[in-house]
Parts: sequence; structure tokens; C-alpha cells
Amino acid sequence: MALKYYHAEPLANSLKSMLPLKEKGLAYESIYVDLHKFEQHSDWFVAINPEGQVPVLDHDGTIITHTTVINEYLEDVFPDAQPASGPLRPKDAVGAAKMRYWNKFIDEHVMNYVSMHGWHRLVGVIARNIDDGTFEELLSHIPLPDQRKKWATARSGFSEADLANATDKIVYALTKIEKQLGETAYLAGDSYTLADINFFAHCGAMVDRMFPELNVDATYPKLVAWRETVKARPAVKEALASEDRTAPGLRTWSGDR
Amino acid sequence: MALKYYHAEPLANSLKSMLPLKEKGLAYESIYVDLHKFEQHSDWFVAINPEGQVPVLDHDGTIITHTTVINEYLEDVFPDAQPASGPLRPKDAVGAAKMRYWNKFIDEHVMNYVSMHGWHRLVGVIARNIDDGTFEELLSHIPLPDQRKKWATARSGFSEADLANATDKIVYALTKIEKQLGETAYLAGDSYTLADINFFAHCGAMVDRMFPELNVDATYPKLVAWRETVKARPAVKEALASEDRTAPGLRTWSGDR
Repeated sequence: MALKYYHAEPLANSLKSMLPLKEKGLAYESIYVDLHKFEQHSDWFVAINPEGQVPVLDHDGTIITHTTVINEYLEDVFPDAQPASGPLRPKDAVGAAKMRYWNKFIDEHVMNYVSMHGWHRLVGVIARNIDDGTFEELLSHIPLPDQRKKWATARSGFSEADLANATDKIVYALTKIEKQLGETAYLAGDSYTLADINFFAHCGAMVDRMFPELNVDATYPKLVAWRETVKARPAVKEALASEDRTAPGLRTWSGDR
Repeated sequence: MALKYYHAEPLANSLKSMLPLKEKGLAYESIYVDLHKFEQHSDWFVAINPEGQVPVLDHDGTIITHTTVINEYLEDVFPDAQPASGPLRPKDAVGAAKMRYWNKFIDEHVMNYVSMHGWHRLVGVIARNIDDGTFEELLSHIPLPDQRKKWATARSGFSEADLANATDKIVYALTKIEKQLGETAYLAGDSYTLADINFFAHCGAMVDRMFPELNVDATYPKLVAWRETVKARPAVKEALASEDRTAPGLRTWSGDR
């Protein structure tokens, strides 16, 4: 049995499926895909994932893509490999439904909006430093139309209205999560699940650094306490310490202060 | 054991979780929520689902919301109640991952875009027939900010750019699905799963009626053949024949020709 995990820096989607691998103690081959060199759109990578996106799980040659799908797959295949804190997908149907409710909320109402701000700041800088001809060439290698649009928009700049809407969505999510963490220790109940991993990877780990104007520490104290609890987990520490080639000045997400 | 299903007309989300109930042969109490009277925003309904949206599954008092979550829940709780064609969620992990890949694609890249066109035509007409004061009062009862925005936009009209983008997304989805149905009999492989139910409920059942300009019958013949196969299923026939209070002239989705 061999697992390979193709991923970039330990944040957002790449972190989201790295954490279950580490929490479950599964041995895997780590294959770093350098987004700074657009390796995700290169022929060798598109041959593995025709959508040209990281991360990818290769399990004995079977390719699984999309982090929420990968994380459910790992639960299906390795149900007994679990951290001491309990299963990442609750064994009872109601607990699993709560976890999936939050996963869906984060996938649909959080991820893209944090991503838009990240792209605006990080990918926008990269995209504007590429000359026109090279940029057109780059776009021509992006398989998904939505991703082509996102790159083009990152270069020209997202509109103020779109960025403001994204901020509203993030504030809504933080408020909702602060409320939930006043009722339960973790998002889907009293144990740590894939829902916590999802929110941590896409938003919770870096929201204070990305949006200092939101005064996250003062406004969402339960979220901050939860974040510190998650950060203290050995699997999380190990993942966050893994390779990061982002130029230090561009670490809006991964956050050199 | 008692199941209650709160739902509106048999299409889109309300159809999406009604089909597994019927396919699995589960006895349930059907509770019709009249969207024409805005019952989904009424106090009695918001007490059941604070998000003010149909459908809702009540399983012995446990409330489950969001159709993709409901459908996975039904698989978790009733794994052995399955149609003769095979389990709605494949028992093997790779099959389940394929089903979830498609569910995610439909949830994130199809549903909202078909819905925008439906709202533009159907809800827009309803919203414009409400006077200003009553409309403000209506908005004040909608729990989710996104839904308030959607109602307000339906009344003022979605932009041409947003509608065109939605059409592009639908064409992309139809093309992708036509290609898949050239390789496998159903979306996630050679048996009928929750992925087929998802696409059928949100798009497949009515896309030809909503978008005659796409020449669906001629352009996507495999999709049309698949749609007819799905429509011939007894559970699907039974669901489609259930109560529909939509004014005939407004049946853009449910489609009186």
C-alpha cells in the first residue's frame, strides 16, 4: 500500500488534506508542487490531475482530488487510524452530519472568500510581475475556465465590491463560528473533526494576520482559544513546519509578521 | 422510528432529498411548505430550521438540513435500504469518492447557476408583484443574509453579465457530463447514485425546458438518454407526480410546455 500526496505550501487546500494524513499517522510520500513555477499547470502534473490543481492523493495509483473528497476517502479507507482525540469523522450519523454541515459551509461560504483576498494580495503581485506575452502563455495552460478567470482577475485586480462582499462573508463566518464555539468545544461537537481541519486550514489559522482591521483577538476570543488548541496538536505543528517556498514578503497567508 | 420531510415542489433541493427517501423505500411523513406564502420564513418553520430553507429532514426529532448532508445521513442510518439498482452511495471507497466529486461539482458549479436563471424568471416575477412595504417586511423575515440579497436582486433583476456567466457555467457542466456519460452509464460509474439524483434534481430534469437555445436534445444526446432512464424509475415518477402549487404560467422549472 502506497500513498503519495502532491501539495504546495502547508496552508489552505494543501494543508487541509495534509492534516488528516498526519493526524491518522499514515505514512505517505510527500511530493511538493511548486506553484511559484506554475508546476500545477505543467504537462506532468495535468497528466495526474487534469484539473491542474493541488492537492492530489494517489493511493496505489488511484487519483483522488478535492480536499473534502480526499478527507472522506481517508476516513472510508482507514477508519481505524485515528488520533487519540477521536475519529476525524464521527462514527455516529448525527455527528457525521454536523461535520458535513460545517464542511459544506466552509467549502461554499468561507474558502473562496478568504482565497479572493489572498489572491488579490499575493497572486495579484505575482501576476502583475509577468509580462503580457508570458501571461497569455501561462493562461493557455490552465485547464479550468474558472481558474483562468481568477488568474486574469488577480492581475487586473478584484473589484472593491467583490472584496467588500468577501469580507462580509468572512465576518459572517467568524460570528457564526464564535457562536458555535460558545456551545461546543469544536465546530461539529465536543471533539476535533474534519470540520475543524477545514476551517483552520482555510481561515482560522491566519485570519488575524490577513484582516488586522477585524480585531480578531478581541472580537472572537473563543475562536482564538480554539485556534491555539488546534495549533498545539503535534500533527498540526508538524504540518505547519513543512516546506514553504513563498517569498517572505509575499507571506500574506502563511504570515511572517 | 419516525421520519418527517419538510419540502416544497418536487424540483431542485426539495426533489433532491425526496428521491433518496423514495428510492430507499423509507416511510416518511410529507410536510408541504408553501413557498408561495413564504412559509419557509415563518416563525413555525424557522423554529425548525433557523436558516429558513427547505428541505428539512426530522428523524425522531433530530433536524438535518442541506440536501447533500441529508442524503449522506440517510446512507449512514439506512445503509441496507437500497433500490435494486444498487446502493445510492457506493460501498467501495473509490466509488464513494467519485460520487462525492460529482456532488461537490453540482453543489458548487451547477446548482446556484441554474437557480439564478430560475429566480430571474420565476421569483423575479413574484417579487415584482409585491409592493415596497410588503417586500421590506418580507426581507426582514429572511434569516440568511445571502437569501435576503438574492430576493432583493431577483426583484431588481440579475445583471446580464451574471446571467451570461451562469449560462457559461451550465454549458460547461453539460459538456462535462456528456463526456462522462460517454464513459460510464451514470455520473459516478455504472450505477445510479446520489450524484445522478443531485444533477437530475437541479438541472438534468429541466435544462431543455429552461434553455431551449442550448438545443439540449441535439447537443447532449447521452445526457438526454440518461435523463429518460432516470425519469423511468418508479421512485422518480412518484416524486415528480407529488404536489405542485406553482401557478402554471410560472412553471419555468417544473415545466408545463
